[in-house]
Amino acid sequence: MAAKLTGNACVGQSGGPTVVINQSLVGVVEEARKHKEIRSILGARHGTKGMMIDDFANLNRVSAKRLEAIAATPAAALGSCRHKPTEADCAVILDHLRNNNVRFYFYIGGDDSAKSTHIIAGMAKKARYEMRLVHVPKTIDNNLMESDHAPGFGSAARFVAAAVRGDDFDNKSIPGVKLDVIMGRDAGWLTAATMLAREKEGDGPHLIYLPERPFSIEKFLADVRRVYKKYGRAVICVSEGIRDAGGKLWAKRIAEESQADVKDDAFGHFQLSGTGALADYLTVRIKSGLADLGVSRVRGDTFGYLQRSFPGFASAVDQKEAREVGRAAVRWACQGKSGSVAIKRKAGKAYKPYLALVPLAKVAGKNLEVPGKYICPSFRRYCLPLVGGLPKTADLE
Amino acid sequence: MAAKLTGNACVGQSGGPTVVINQSLVGVVEEARKHKEIRSILGARHGTKGMMIDDFANLNRVSAKRLEAIAATPAAALGSCRHKPTEADCAVILDHLRNNNVRFYFYIGGDDSAKSTHIIAGMAKKARYEMRLVHVPKTIDNNLMESDHAPGFGSAARFVAAAVRGDDFDNKSIPGVKLDVIMGRDAGWLTAATMLAREKEGDGPHLIYLPERPFSIEKFLADVRRVYKKYGRAVICVSEGIRDAGGKLWAKRIAEESQADVKDDAFGHFQLSGTGALADYLTVRIKSGLADLGVSRVRGDTFGYLQRSFPGFASAVDQKEAREVGRAAVRWACQGKSGSVAIKRKAGKAYKPYLALVPLAKVAGKNLEVPGKYICPSFRRYCLPLVGGLPKTADLE
Repeated sequence: MAAKLTGNACVGQSGGPTVVINQSLVGVVEEARKHKEIRSILGARHGTKGMMIDDFANLNRVSAKRLEAIAATPAAALGSCRHKPTEADCAVILDHLRNNNVRFYFYIGGDDSAKSTHIIAGMAKKARYEMRLVHVPKTIDNNLMESDHAPGFGSAARFVAAAVRGDDFDNKSIPGVKLDVIMGRDAGWLTAATMLAREKEGDGPHLIYLPERPFSIEKFLADVRRVYKKYGRAVICVSEGIRDAGGKLWAKRIAEESQADVKDDAFGHFQLSGTGALADYLTVRIKSGLADLGVSRVRGDTFGYLQRSFPGFASAVDQKEAREVGRAAVRWACQGKSGSVAIKRKAGKAYKPYLALVPLAKVAGKNLEVPGKYICPSFRRYCLPLVGGLPKTADLE
Repeated sequence: MAAKLTGNACVGQSGGPTVVINQSLVGVVEEARKHKEIRSILGARHGTKGMMIDDFANLNRVSAKRLEAIAATPAAALGSCRHKPTEADCAVILDHLRNNNVRFYFYIGGDDSAKSTHIIAGMAKKARYEMRLVHVPKTIDNNLMESDHAPGFGSAARFVAAAVRGDDFDNKSIPGVKLDVIMGRDAGWLTAATMLAREKEGDGPHLIYLPERPFSIEKFLADVRRVYKKYGRAVICVSEGIRDAGGKLWAKRIAEESQADVKDDAFGHFQLSGTGALADYLTVRIKSGLADLGVSRVRGDTFGYLQRSFPGFASAVDQKEAREVGRAAVRWACQGKSGSVAIKRKAGKAYKPYLALVPLAKVAGKNLEVPGKYICPSFRRYCLPLVGGLPKTADLE
């Protein structure tokens, strides 16, 4: 490295927001203010979409008090996007970044955000434009390679585990079959986290289905039958991303069967959230499949956007870590480094996290699946510290 | 009144549980222990269903510590039911109550629970069996006559208002049309409470639809169009109980159109919760109705059972009041009175609630609708103290 790189910083937020993505934004901003080589801090409005049209907010003068309030606010204060920039888009973005003398680039998002950061880094290098680019991790899906876990996951896991705990008490009160559909397109981490709701034998969720394992409707109905016969009730958690043996999304199969409006989004993804179709389909199948047992009460809920946006219920550990990954990204960039920030965990009983900077290529566009071994009880040990405890509850007997 | 009535007490929980219905149960139990004329406290398992088969839990020896933990636990610790006892059922129940020397009867529930209590009271009087019967109010629907509000409503309102606040931030991040379906079969109190999510001009929810006013799909689409053109996005809250001009439930209309399995429950009610069909129908209508505006992102969530069962997020005011109505019920019964406990509110700026005992007949089987005048800003003044504050949030600009 020659003379110390000096210039402006750009920060953006991308993909599905979380309740702690603003913690990372605030972490970047407050750390950037400490480094003299960073002159101005530009906030890209709606991520790469804003960068393409030169739409930046000036973050130099936002008060510390307001920053603190924003950090506690769900969703992306700068605006987010579902934009997957092409090579041509990235060239436009780099032009704008150069024109704004951006030398430090921080992009908060998931594996797709790591990918666009990686592309822009490659273009900058080719163009011999010196720049540090750091991807700041964020995703409730928890599917980032090289990471023990991702910021956003702990809070979403806390929400779904608490929700299923309450739902299980509700189901004990008025027994029946209850099915909850949980977010997670390609990885079942969040759905798996519902197991934290269980405290003792007989507690729900009694059945959990992840996208990583093929979902057979016949096997599913046999499972529900077995649980219902044993407990006189059943609480079931299903990932929105469950697939059949051929790897096809059940949500897509159902939409095609019902001739619904089937459309993929800008990422080439089929819409999973924001519809109750999967839960409704499965409850209908349970009603008819278990009719001989006289199961009359079958209900399905789709937890939907609340999982990633419900305020006032974040995991304190997750909030702290999300702030810290933003700060660390700036420190690494000011040390002349580019890459993706990853949270690692030290071996041992106590929860001891630490941060590492890993190559962008190792995270970009990749998906970390739930490994087989994580089916309880080790998953509980993995997940509980990230969630930071659940509200206390008790039975009469 | 002759000599002081002495005997056992029976307490039961009924209908859709809430996160504070156990507060009322614990209120009854702890107060009953203070009154010597109450010998044993019997807890009816699953409400009148348990009473019909003599299924009672002994609540004499549950520790104060466990009672406190149960009070903080969502749903009905004794079990609840959706059972609407007939006259013949009530005769069976009265037999069991007499055999168990029950002289004090406390039933925690909504207007249907007041009704069964009223029927049993009438039968006991006719049979010259001396008994005090007090209905303890509970319902997230907030539709009890003679009451300013009902226990359970404040916490459910807090949950939905916070959820919509978070959802609105999410929608600001990635603009589009977001529709949330809220519980409330006959009364729109809970749906109206989502207006607490608004802090300033432009905040959602931008549109709110209650069951009390006929819902026209043409008017609805015109409303959404107007809002979307103004803000470039729209957050909409719709009660599950919306009806057409003829008074027919939209949920039922949609089910009939799609030839879905249309069945009424034991109360003669059509199933509204536990399905995403209404939200899915309305989002499809928005997509096609607003296609010319290029609205691509339309999402629907149905908040479902989380509204009444989510732990760790109750309103402190609601918790306190739910406990107090249970205690007051016992005190009135021990003073020789029967009736339904109602929460009233003193006129004036500060929130000052007080309790009253009103005739069972005035509450039994009746529905309190949201009056027209409660469309903001007076509804905010009504509702905010019951919710006990929302998590603090902030925008960048």
